[in-house]
Amino acid sequence: MPETLIKVDLSQSAYDNDMVHNRWHPDIPMVATVKPGADFIVETYDWTGGFIKNNDSADDVRDIDLSIVHFLSGPIGVEGAEPGDLLVVDLLDIGAKPESQWGFNGFFSKKNGGGFLTEHFPQAQKSIWDFEGMFTKSRHIPGVRFPGLIHPGLIGCLPDPKLLATWNEREIAFVNTDPERVPALGTVPFGPTAHMGRLTGEARDKAAAEGARTVPPREHGGNCDIKDLSRGSKIYFPVYVPGAGLSMGDLHFSQGDGEITFCGAIEMAGWVHLKVDLIKDGMAKYGIKNPIFKPSPITPQYDDYLIFEGISVDEWGKQHYLDVHVAYRQACLNAIEYLKKFGYSGAQAYSILGTAPVQGHISGVVDIPNACATLWIPTKIFEFDINPSAAGPTKFLDGSIQMPLSPDL
Amino acid sequence: MPETLIKVDLSQSAYDNDMVHNRWHPDIPMVATVKPGADFIVETYDWTGGFIKNNDSADDVRDIDLSIVHFLSGPIGVEGAEPGDLLVVDLLDIGAKPESQWGFNGFFSKKNGGGFLTEHFPQAQKSIWDFEGMFTKSRHIPGVRFPGLIHPGLIGCLPDPKLLATWNEREIAFVNTDPERVPALGTVPFGPTAHMGRLTGEARDKAAAEGARTVPPREHGGNCDIKDLSRGSKIYFPVYVPGAGLSMGDLHFSQGDGEITFCGAIEMAGWVHLKVDLIKDGMAKYGIKNPIFKPSPITPQYDDYLIFEGISVDEWGKQHYLDVHVAYRQACLNAIEYLKKFGYSGAQAYSILGTAPVQGHISGVVDIPNACATLWIPTKIFEFDINPSAAGPTKFLDGSIQMPLSPDL
Amino acid sequence: MPETLIKVDLSQSAYDNDMVHNRWHPDIPMVATVKPGADFIVETYDWTGGFIKNNDSADDVRDIDLSIVHFLSGPIGVEGAEPGDLLVVDLLDIGAKPESQWGFNGFFSKKNGGGFLTEHFPQAQKSIWDFEGMFTKSRHIPGVRFPGLIHPGLIGCLPDPKLLATWNEREIAFVNTDPERVPALGTVPFGPTAHMGRLTGEARDKAAAEGARTVPPREHGGNCDIKDLSRGSKIYFPVYVPGAGLSMGDLHFSQGDGEITFCGAIEMAGWVHLKVDLIKDGMAKYGIKNPIFKPSPITPQYDDYLIFEGISVDEWGKQHYLDVHVAYRQACLNAIEYLKKFGYSGAQAYSILGTAPVQGHISGVVDIPNACATLWIPTKIFEFDINPSAAGPTKFLDGSIQMPLSPDL
Amino acid sequence: MPETLIKVDLSQSAYDNDMVHNRWHPDIPMVATVKPGADFIVETYDWTGGFIKNNDSADDVRDIDLSIVHFLSGPIGVEGAEPGDLLVVDLLDIGAKPESQWGFNGFFSKKNGGGFLTEHFPQAQKSIWDFEGMFTKSRHIPGVRFPGLIHPGLIGCLPDPKLLATWNEREIAFVNTDPERVPALGTVPFGPTAHMGRLTGEARDKAAAEGARTVPPREHGGNCDIKDLSRGSKIYFPVYVPGAGLSMGDLHFSQGDGEITFCGAIEMAGWVHLKVDLIKDGMAKYGIKNPIFKPSPITPQYDDYLIFEGISVDEWGKQHYLDVHVAYRQACLNAIEYLKKFGYSGAQAYSILGTAPVQGHISGVVDIPNACATLWIPTKIFEFDINPSAAGPTKFLDGSIQMPLSPDL
Repeated sequence: MPETLIKVDLSQSAYDNDMVHNRWHPDIPMVATVKPGADFIVETYDWTGGFIKNNDSADDVRDIDLSIVHFLSGPIGVEGAEPGDLLVVDLLDIGAKPESQWGFNGFFSKKNGGGFLTEHFPQAQKSIWDFEGMFTKSRHIPGVRFPGLIHPGLIGCLPDPKLLATWNEREIAFVNTDPERVPALGTVPFGPTAHMGRLTGEARDKAAAEGARTVPPREHGGNCDIKDLSRGSKIYFPVYVPGAGLSMGDLHFSQGDGEITFCGAIEMAGWVHLKVDLIKDGMAKYGIKNPIFKPSPITPQYDDYLIFEGISVDEWGKQHYLDVHVAYRQACLNAIEYLKKFGYSGAQAYSILGTAPVQGHISGVVDIPNACATLWIPTKIFEFDINPSAAGPTKFLDGSIQMPLSPDL
Repeated sequence: MPETLIKVDLSQSAYDNDMVHNRWHPDIPMVATVKPGADFIVETYDWTGGFIKNNDSADDVRDIDLSIVHFLSGPIGVEGAEPGDLLVVDLLDIGAKPESQWGFNGFFSKKNGGGFLTEHFPQAQKSIWDFEGMFTKSRHIPGVRFPGLIHPGLIGCLPDPKLLATWNEREIAFVNTDPERVPALGTVPFGPTAHMGRLTGEARDKAAAEGARTVPPREHGGNCDIKDLSRGSKIYFPVYVPGAGLSMGDLHFSQGDGEITFCGAIEMAGWVHLKVDLIKDGMAKYGIKNPIFKPSPITPQYDDYLIFEGISVDEWGKQHYLDVHVAYRQACLNAIEYLKKFGYSGAQAYSILGTAPVQGHISGVVDIPNACATLWIPTKIFEFDINPSAAGPTKFLDGSIQMPLSPDL
Repeated sequence: MPETLIKVDLSQSAYDNDMVHNRWHPDIPMVATVKPGADFIVETYDWTGGFIKNNDSADDVRDIDLSIVHFLSGPIGVEGAEPGDLLVVDLLDIGAKPESQWGFNGFFSKKNGGGFLTEHFPQAQKSIWDFEGMFTKSRHIPGVRFPGLIHPGLIGCLPDPKLLATWNEREIAFVNTDPERVPALGTVPFGPTAHMGRLTGEARDKAAAEGARTVPPREHGGNCDIKDLSRGSKIYFPVYVPGAGLSMGDLHFSQGDGEITFCGAIEMAGWVHLKVDLIKDGMAKYGIKNPIFKPSPITPQYDDYLIFEGISVDEWGKQHYLDVHVAYRQACLNAIEYLKKFGYSGAQAYSILGTAPVQGHISGVVDIPNACATLWIPTKIFEFDINPSAAGPTKFLDGSIQMPLSPDL
Repeated sequence: MPETLIKVDLSQSAYDNDMVHNRWHPDIPMVATVKPGADFIVETYDWTGGFIKNNDSADDVRDIDLSIVHFLSGPIGVEGAEPGDLLVVDLLDIGAKPESQWGFNGFFSKKNGGGFLTEHFPQAQKSIWDFEGMFTKSRHIPGVRFPGLIHPGLIGCLPDPKLLATWNEREIAFVNTDPERVPALGTVPFGPTAHMGRLTGEARDKAAAEGARTVPPREHGGNCDIKDLSRGSKIYFPVYVPGAGLSMGDLHFSQGDGEITFCGAIEMAGWVHLKVDLIKDGMAKYGIKNPIFKPSPITPQYDDYLIFEGISVDEWGKQHYLDVHVAYRQACLNAIEYLKKFGYSGAQAYSILGTAPVQGHISGVVDIPNACATLWIPTKIFEFDINPSAAGPTKFLDGSIQMPLSPDL
């Protein structure tokens, strides 16, 4: 096996592992350096550093301090990488930690982060997913089982000071347009819970105060939560600092397009086997601003989907202008109503959309004033037939199994 | 062959064919009635009724009066269909008219409709696509050829008076929030160019004055422009009026997710072989608001894509809140910049994204404040290799072939 | 639409159409000539020239004189084609004749041709398959429906005299090793029923007496019955005579690997839209002996199969040496036994294997003394669930519908 | 992680591990017992028990004593399993041993086992394949890289005495029809190198003398070498003895249909995570003779193949009757000639066909006297373009890298 460059001990606090960090800042020191062409392994915590537990209560989902996320492994330096290059990353393989063959999914309370459907599911709920080799199922959501499309929710290179400044200005100004909003409009630098890796002393404190939060995806990639960035894919990342500084974390066993449940996909601790290479001056050569990638040759393939449409008139009848966000929300709500006819609770249906490899397509974005989005559910993930028929739906589930819910305190 | 219920003569004005209409209204008379289980053929004009010609000038794209669209064939009554039912439609096959083996794609002038990237491509341009059996290519865009994923851009059932009223109120109020906007926020009833099928006299005039325009997708489906509603798919439509009243048109030989060029996909005249059936009281049984569908078992399959990311920071650096529309626009702009490195003009690259079976995925919609969207380009549609390499891109095209452009007058 | 070079009138005898022939011979005159790069349409009879009818009796299958087959359309000359070139053929599209939207499948009597399982199904049987756009189903075999993977069973170029002599010597000698065998070991030249196209007089009689029969696939391709040579595929044929002389026929709406029913796939009359081009001296450049091809980008895709294994111990317990033919026969017999548990007759199950897009894989051919072959049945072609379960199979069919059978006279 | 029921130490002789055996016999004691529904892990040696080394000599391939194979892990008992049941096995995951991230492929000398093309490649040759996560490539065969379709070449349940007797009678009689043949017609019981697991003393000696060799696939499955029995698939095995007695081994990282190189696929030591369940009386319920299975939802998917045809006229011009073995050999030989045009040696091309996920289809088996078989090569496994073009092939390889060859002594 190739060398494991970064190890994590799940029984140890992520704050005590100096090869981990939870902010983006150019001053975070490299924890290892590799040559182009090298392949190696990186272990990661789950995005919360182990805060969410494998149990039957959603209290942890309700109570989590979201300023601690995401715990990333890195940064890793690549010899010869210079600003303007493309860092080519092959995700050769990804897996869960052997001692941690499970993951979690949940919705945050509207007061603490919320989610895509927080108006409809305003309270903390959780489901636990057990892994069986390539497959997963949940004791909280019966009747559904599927193979994992394992991927890192978050991966990218360190920003340079200029890019970092752009991010902070842009996002702080934006949050300030409605600073009291719940959930918040964005996340801004917050020193107290920052983990700046091997940076120490004053340098650490200064960087912690200005380090960008890891929540949003940005020009460098970062927290894109693209389910198709899965094991076997190849990614081309912009490089901003000498050595590139590649970090990653937030591994998902599986996720639906949009990661609509926010907390999150099927979140897990694990490892990534990757290989790095360079395209010198690749950003200019190919006109690259954001990362580009090629999908894996090995992914779950489905030939049968049930597809739900949504348009950009919201659930209260209000017209929005070509708003794909609203349209996709309607498609999701339509799917939830449908799945409830088979016996699922709304929360269970919502969780399925957040965890299973459902696709979200931008189907029409020009037919004023309505965008049209589609949600694709692979029918084979269910242990029963969810197709429409003249006879109407059968209630396969009796409601005896429900997801843990923790009301706000 | 099954009966052709509706025929169109492409040499005749669509206004002279009384089995065609271009507005949605419950009073438009059925032009034929079929039994559940029947299969039959419906011919259609292209969406503009033949206004756009197979030539090398974009003047027609610039000059079109968009109040005339879309010319739909129907409505067709289904015996026994009642409000609340689901009309099950099998698209058994779809094709171009034998005498019209070509289609068009274009961008409207910003002053006359615009498009997804109208700020970047504000003037009318056009490309013509010739069909070679299952495949298409364009004399205006070299180096690209692909099989058709043929589908109706627009299909759905007549609204009842209440639903029609909802549409008109909602959209008129919305347009009135910025009535002078260019392009407009929406399309409102407009009698002078209305074609109300077999409705005549005062009833016709009244309906024409209140008939909903066909541009936006709505609760009944309509102009969804979903590329995956292709030949072989099965759709479940809500029924609002006795007899259902199914109409269709706006056939596309191929389209990318989003139909970003707006004028439009690869637009064509053609025919649809379809079969209808009913699920009685299906709307309530399955909790259906918008149509749902199942994809075709026969579609082009690709194993290799180049995927572009975009986030909801717009091209002028402005932050938007989880805005998938903005994120997808960035992904599209990123792809256009990339394709230009191989010798395409920006307009040609834009056209490829509008016509080829590219996928647009909603990848992340919860990581405040940035949505992340991805644009998937199948690499095999190109006659050369567009993958990144250490050597950098090769300019395969010398720019000698360009798309017709017609500046605003 | 492109020009139709060869037309067939299904109400006319194939013998009266001089653009048709049913033997391979270099002297058969070209019926049309095209330039490289041209695309055009060719109509064809079904392989029997209309002998098998759309009715509910298998008498025609029992009584057919097999020396009349296959009626091929051509030969078509390609300007500039010379021996040693590769003729590149794009199958741009293929379809049934509009006036003939059906096909047939059957098993010959063991006394008149037989088939792969003739020891188990020694008498003539037939099923008729109706087309519904892209789909087909049979009134003689309930519960199964699938999209067509349309292809020509037979396509290839004329042999030169030397190749023809090789064929005749090889096959006549082989048949003579057991000339009384029933069914025969092969088919030898037979003048009385030969149709030599536009060849007349003595030249015709001489060629008829030595023209190779069209039954076996050979070096030039010919009657390969490869289901994947479907609409959208691209084939590279060896050229033996100046002008190439491309002929084709024996269209299939669908077929399982092996065409095990022999009479045959779902056989139909129809048309082929094709395009031709040349690779000069391609046979030597690429070391080509038999045709090579690339599959279509549009084919039915299945994600779920039930797969049956067979080994080269025959149904009477006899050991054969790495014999894939025997192994595949066992896999087929195993599948038939399985399908009978759901209510199909053996004959119906056999027909499904001959018509549906089942795959036959050569799985192991080195593990002495047993070859292993696998038969892949796509589960979605059935209207009910054929997967194994702890509960055991359900008899979905009551046996009230059976296939016509015509005992030997 | 689930329990590892059987461990293997690759530094130890397989003969010293009593949870391993290399013959089939009903008396071999179960080494562990599990309940229906249990999942667990089983480690395995490579099929030769470590005889073939990761080096650059083929001496080991030439010199191996083939009577030692295959070293299987098991048998594992399943509580409640009885003769006539079906044992349902889910292959939840499969991988290489962490300390052994490589595999081997080779051709035996014609004098010692041979292979599918032994007449053309009569001497021992070998290639070593290194694993990079999901992918593999060889230092002996440049220009080719592909993801693994990992599977056990051999898996099945113990025979009962009657079935064992049938095997021995059948195969011994067959070998005796030509006992001096090189390579041999089959493998017969051979006590001296038998490893009978935990069986000891006289019982061991008796069983060793009559234990069936593991080379051929048989009614129980066994050495089927079906590449699609991959991680994620589900298999239904006939049960012959109380407790079933499931054994497995001969893991392959990847293999082409037919395993034509015989030594073998990409052979490796590794582990299988599996789950077992029962269908009581399933053999009768479903009419099962040989195992049936369902493929994995996660397999490498290719959209582009180059397909070679072969017919049952052998390479010396001799006619065979519907012989798929001969036809597939011609297709393989045709592919090898083609690949040589790009710079591969014949041996390298042969190895690619044995290791990469090529498909072998039984295309036509009724067109007397010629069978037609097709060999499908996924074009994307190559780092260069192998498609035909008017320009002819490019020699990408200069022949400086060759496979080790060890002439017979």
